[in-house]
Amino acid sequence: MDVQLKWEGKMAFTGIGGTSGHSVAIDAAPDVGGENRGARPMELLLNGLGGCTGIDIVSILNRMRLSFGTFEIDIHAERAEDHPKRFTHIHLHYRLTGDHLPPDKVRRAIRLSMDKYCSAAASLNADLTASFEINGTRYEADETTA
Amino acid sequence: MDVQLKWEGKMAFTGIGGTSGHSVAIDAAPDVGGENRGARPMELLLNGLGGCTGIDIVSILNRMRLSFGTFEIDIHAERAEDHPKRFTHIHLHYRLTGDHLPPDKVRRAIRLSMDKYCSAAASLNADLTASFEINGTRYEADETTA
Repeated sequence: MDVQLKWEGKMAFTGIGGTSGHSVAIDAAPDVGGENRGARPMELLLNGLGGCTGIDIVSILNRMRLSFGTFEIDIHAERAEDHPKRFTHIHLHYRLTGDHLPPDKVRRAIRLSMDKYCSAAASLNADLTASFEINGTRYEADETTA
Repeated sequence: MDVQLKWEGKMAFTGIGGTSGHSVAIDAAPDVGGENRGARPMELLLNGLGGCTGIDIVSILNRMRLSFGTFEIDIHAERAEDHPKRFTHIHLHYRLTGDHLPPDKVRRAIRLSMDKYCSAAASLNADLTASFEINGTRYEADETTA
């Protein structure tokens, strides 16, 4: 897989995906010389993680013949205080609505993504934890608390 | 740092960065049920890596009082064959043009980013290697070959 980035002046870059052809605007915050003309690089890592596991969950629920109305993922990441300030812990909270969504099956879909299928999760070295909610009721998704 | 993803039907998601406020369109390829309405999730990881090290290099060259005309980064990533198909090796090739860009200083800027400052590089578990070119002349940037 290939991407190409092009500098756009100051701290801004455009990144073009060689597979999709889609471009993404990237920029730093004004306090470090950027102009906020695009996403922060570290946000893109989290969006990649969320998109990866999100696509997994949709695929797995489809295979389980479970339908849902809305689906959102809230991701919160903690970073090391010292340079290079890597992600140390990332929590994913999956929020679904739907008429027939058994919590055990949704938990199984999340675990399959996190443990087996999600390429982005497997490419990051942070600790990953997960929780979910169905129609506003919250559940834990980690093995130890499932 | 927070991001929030919202399902947009089929395999498509929109990811919104809580820091920048910028949104990113994400989608899967048609052969797995997507419609290519946005970037692949794994492309976003690479764009995040490229933006992170790109911003580092711009900052470091600015501090060295070295100016450049154009700056691009080509990123090539290899993935494991088996699920979860994580990134195993990522090569970054930095391409700069400019009238006064000593190769040893550009190499130093790249090494500082890769080894010390780039949060995205430190958050990925793939092996990372780097090379660069200045006005079309190619150099290696890895410690072992520098």
